Amino acid sequence: MTEFDRATSLRSIGDGRYEAQLDPGWRIGRAVNGGILMALASRAMSEEFSTEGHGHPFSISGYFLSASNPGPAELEVERLRTGSMMTTGQLTLSQDRTDRLRVLATYGSHDSLTDEVRTVATPPRLPPPEECLAASSGPREMLGASDLLDRTELRLDPESAAWAMGRPSGRGVVQGWLRMADGREPDVHQLVFATDSLPPVTFDLGVFGWAPTLELTVHVRAEPAPGWLVVRHSTRNFAGGLLEEDGEVWDSSGRLVAQSRQLAMAPRKRSG
Amino acid sequence: MTEFDRATSLRSIGDGRYEAQLDPGWRIGRAVNGGILMALASRAMSEEFSTEGHGHPFSISGYFLSASNPGPAELEVERLRTGSMMTTGQLTLSQDRTDRLRVLATYGSHDSLTDEVRTVATPPRLPPPEECLAASSGPREMLGASDLLDRTELRLDPESAAWAMGRPSGRGVVQGWLRMADGREPDVHQLVFATDSLPPVTFDLGVFGWAPTLELTVHVRAEPAPGWLVVRHSTRNFAGGLLEEDGEVWDSSGRLVAQSRQLAMAPRKRSG
Repeated sequence: MTEFDRATSLRSIGDGRYEAQLDPGWRIGRAVNGGILMALASRAMSEEFSTEGHGHPFSISGYFLSASNPGPAELEVERLRTGSMMTTGQLTLSQDRTDRLRVLATYGSHDSLTDEVRTVATPPRLPPPEECLAASSGPREMLGASDLLDRTELRLDPESAAWAMGRPSGRGVVQGWLRMADGREPDVHQLVFATDSLPPVTFDLGVFGWAPTLELTVHVRAEPAPGWLVVRHSTRNFAGGLLEEDGEVWDSSGRLVAQSRQLAMAPRKRSG
Repeated sequence: MTEFDRATSLRSIGDGRYEAQLDPGWRIGRAVNGGILMALASRAMSEEFSTEGHGHPFSISGYFLSASNPGPAELEVERLRTGSMMTTGQLTLSQDRTDRLRVLATYGSHDSLTDEVRTVATPPRLPPPEECLAASSGPREMLGASDLLDRTELRLDPESAAWAMGRPSGRGVVQGWLRMADGREPDVHQLVFATDSLPPVTFDLGVFGWAPTLELTVHVRAEPAPGWLVVRHSTRNFAGGLLEEDGEVWDSSGRLVAQSRQLAMAPRKRSG
């Protein structure tokens, strides 16, 4: 079993309820990464809504209520509406009766969608993976004690990682190549994780420290082709101690397979 | 009382529950506009969370479950977490026991935020309102039977409204000036409405007809200054019968006061 599949594995205990073990290997600092929690939620809803043939997340929104710790967790899925094309539901992830994450999501089947693609977005241009910076070789003190970095192979575009050399570009962009360290190929749930797997985009503004997510919405638009993903995070509106972080995930066939936006709190600590 | 305040007025019946009347004057076709429903939800949660001094929506996500009709509606707010800076909660809007809209949201106080603005986004450039196209003078058969158009004064940037003359630009952008027809000045709840108040961005791609919203998330980033708003909608990823619609709302002081994204279904009917 791959690391990602182990971290998002679920045990059904009936009535839409599942048990899971939050893995210490997916922490950022002391808390478990929000992206892997969203992927876990995504799998639970997928399992639940597969009965109707609606196993793929189309849109999933998570509101983070408290920081998650490694250890046991419970997930509870509630069905809100089932139509012929889609099912909408809600999920609560809790630990020891404390709610960690509340999710609303709409699921369907990517197989039921048309083949028409009229995307005007263009993939980010970045050097090939071998000319990018391995995040694992970056300054650990800046990335924090991040077990998560060992789960993924992340190659950052040097232009968007100049903060690692003390020269943040100020553009508010962090982008790079991403694949799982153990070679697991991407699927729809891993795309959900991918949208929250890069260093905070605030680093490129010279603002370091943790930027806790208040809300994260991911639109998963297609099943990804095998191979490297390109992930781009950007922010345009850093104001009042809050910022949005927009994410794009492109697969190896050059298709825009996921889009995300989160609202995060700006870190208190800063340099420069 | 202004039209907007009447359409979003609430009667508390205790325990986080409210009664409202969905006004026929805010319909698009036969259904009540999603933006005004979101604004109604926004006011109910604001009223509920004002007790903690958290009366301003920071992020609000709505999943649409069924089309709303003019007439009585019930709203029920559930508190999920209250911290010192923010309250997160959930809301269900129903009619005759059928759920129409489920909402997750985080509220706080814009007064508690820092004055720091490091926005790199720049306001859309468009001609002054008097050189823009009044949407109310546009082709009604294209906009559909839209009572909503009479509630607002909407002046579309001619470049992003060339579809009205049969020449959609193909850029996937619709933008213009917006204010309420009766002169009501904007507030945080009206910004929520504003993000879903323009003709569908698909018109600029030459795809006409209704584009029902599956999910809409709005980040309200500041209280708006009085005067005209500039609203910009764009899409970059029209694929598989679904599209995202990104919204920006700028106030008269030139501040980016709200950002939104929705996932919508592409209209079935099309021209060209």
